[in-house]
Amino acid sequence: MRVLILGGDGYLGWPTAMHLSTKGHDVAVVDNYLRRRICREENVTPLFETPDLIQRCKIWDRISGYQIPAFIGDLAHWDFVSDVFKKFMPDTVVHFAEQPAAPYSMLNRKAATLTLQNNLMVTANVIFAVREFCPDAHIIKLGTMGEYGTPNIDIEEGWIDIEHKGRKDTFLYPRQAGSLYHTTKIMDTDLLWFYVRMWDLRVTDLMQGPVYGIFTDENETDEQLLPFFNYDELFGTVLNRFVVQAVAGYPLTVYGKGGQTRGYLNIKDTINCIRLALETPAPQGRLRIFNQFTETFSVSELAEKVLRVGNRLGLDVTIQSIENPRKEAESHYYNPVHTGLIELGLEPNFLTNDVLAHLMKFVSNYKNTISKDQIFKKIKWA
Amino acid sequence: MRVLILGGDGYLGWPTAMHLSTKGHDVAVVDNYLRRRICREENVTPLFETPDLIQRCKIWDRISGYQIPAFIGDLAHWDFVSDVFKKFMPDTVVHFAEQPAAPYSMLNRKAATLTLQNNLMVTANVIFAVREFCPDAHIIKLGTMGEYGTPNIDIEEGWIDIEHKGRKDTFLYPRQAGSLYHTTKIMDTDLLWFYVRMWDLRVTDLMQGPVYGIFTDENETDEQLLPFFNYDELFGTVLNRFVVQAVAGYPLTVYGKGGQTRGYLNIKDTINCIRLALETPAPQGRLRIFNQFTETFSVSELAEKVLRVGNRLGLDVTIQSIENPRKEAESHYYNPVHTGLIELGLEPNFLTNDVLAHLMKFVSNYKNTISKDQIFKKIKWA
Repeated sequence: MRVLILGGDGYLGWPTAMHLSTKGHDVAVVDNYLRRRICREENVTPLFETPDLIQRCKIWDRISGYQIPAFIGDLAHWDFVSDVFKKFMPDTVVHFAEQPAAPYSMLNRKAATLTLQNNLMVTANVIFAVREFCPDAHIIKLGTMGEYGTPNIDIEEGWIDIEHKGRKDTFLYPRQAGSLYHTTKIMDTDLLWFYVRMWDLRVTDLMQGPVYGIFTDENETDEQLLPFFNYDELFGTVLNRFVVQAVAGYPLTVYGKGGQTRGYLNIKDTINCIRLALETPAPQGRLRIFNQFTETFSVSELAEKVLRVGNRLGLDVTIQSIENPRKEAESHYYNPVHTGLIELGLEPNFLTNDVLAHLMKFVSNYKNTISKDQIFKKIKWA
Repeated sequence: MRVLILGGDGYLGWPTAMHLSTKGHDVAVVDNYLRRRICREENVTPLFETPDLIQRCKIWDRISGYQIPAFIGDLAHWDFVSDVFKKFMPDTVVHFAEQPAAPYSMLNRKAATLTLQNNLMVTANVIFAVREFCPDAHIIKLGTMGEYGTPNIDIEEGWIDIEHKGRKDTFLYPRQAGSLYHTTKIMDTDLLWFYVRMWDLRVTDLMQGPVYGIFTDENETDEQLLPFFNYDELFGTVLNRFVVQAVAGYPLTVYGKGGQTRGYLNIKDTINCIRLALETPAPQGRLRIFNQFTETFSVSELAEKVLRVGNRLGLDVTIQSIENPRKEAESHYYNPVHTGLIELGLEPNFLTNDVLAHLMKFVSNYKNTISKDQIFKKIKWA
């Protein structure tokens, strides 16, 4: 298939691009380097430098022989969007092109406005472009498990049957997010669901949990092909941050009681989920929703796992409970369904001690470059 | 109270401003004339000319002695928003400042983008301004009954208790709208609900049905104080349009089967609802939601009412069923609760034959200025 990956420079976009190209798909990537720009503005740096997207595509071509054309520009601007779609004419659009950090979205008004405008306008432009240039194309949209929040009932895969006063109907599962970033993903769902009904689009919305890890089958041979690995409070996902903190001798910072439970997955599973969704597209006129994670952990459980494995590797790991800068339930019911992607064929890579040790050893190579003052930036939710 | 009315030049904003000023409130109005600009661009004109907002305030001052300061500018721009809030420091913000037309939002990509950007950015700026300058202020937001769509279960006032697999929780009532405009109102609700939880804002969200009529206690003395009265497909609400069509000898255009049922209210009730919500504010940290309408009708019932009253007045009124340009259920279950505003003291003005005849006689004065070619513009939903 002809697959256009929006946000192809990102933590997940780039590994997805390489993976799909090895699986026989014609892949193109689009990015405006927003993530890199925000990192510079907020003075946070990933664990190591990564080549820019044009260079990455050249390196990948040299190593694998697969060519991935790159378009550099801002998908919030229609002229650029229409150019890209007219040139590439995709069968599948994978939409990662959003400001992806909850803490950044809560930093200040400017960051909130950027998140809201970028995420909504890019999603709207993707919808308009598919309608105008390739109405049969399948949109695969990265949503988040965070759209559901932490309800006191079981979380279904996107939809719920409600019986009320003796009558029945099926609705989008109720959504109630914990950050502005997550709220923009709810708005994306509102928008996609509306145009699916009006224009018979075909859409898969992947409600993804926090991703950890860095290695995929495609990047182990060359460090220049690795994705960003942020460990700062803005862009670092929790397990990746804990691993860096363990290596740096910085206490693992558990917010409040640490009972915050989420569904996690390995970066290898993210790219497999995208491929599985793409190879069995949603039918026309359907918003198909999958919950994309493989196992659930509380923050305290993650910290204890990292502590155990770290100490076994000879690191001196400690856990410190700190006042929660977020406004969230610190202990709650959490029972989300996640069968759809398993039924499509996903074979999970679980968070074993070996997986954790492998990651920790890799991060140890960069121990001297870790800048401790970016680990915790005190971004307050309220 | 110090009441800041955003969208104070609009069909409902201006009557609300006059009404609240006579009830002892200090009122200021804000508008950027977006509605007037779109009307010029799309070549539609209200039934009669209305003075601009500065002139209206002067006329109202001369007639009533009440002074209403007006701020002219775009609330999607933060610099303007912060200026207005710093100068006026409201206790209550009434937020009408949105692109209000479903058909306009479905016209083309440009109109959709304008609707999405304007409505979301103004709502976000209102939230940020209240947080920064007047965190105790009460936000009264105009939502729409259209956020709920036409579900097969009873529509509650904003919230629903769900029992699922033996567990219970309370959620926002499921929302599923029939136009992009209505979808932006869902997104507004998402945004308000998020910041109510994070920042303890106090918000009343009024899920309003289509409004009809033109007269209020404050404007019957001087035609220069009347609000816009659009009868075009873009901005005219259905009953107002039918009255103009009846007067012009243009068949009442019923889309498809005509079973589309909605909750309607008289413009007098809109302004009373706003006043009631304002005089009993929502508590801090609460998103209070009321369904704002007084009676439900199907489109066919409305057409038949207009036909009966029109023929009694000697007009030659006919009804014509046309192919539905919208994608919507043409017959459906519809049973929405609407007790909250009644409990606050609302005394409804129902759609009697006298009310309809009064409106029809008024419109007849402008019979010669009606431009039939703007009644139906064939805006297609799909």
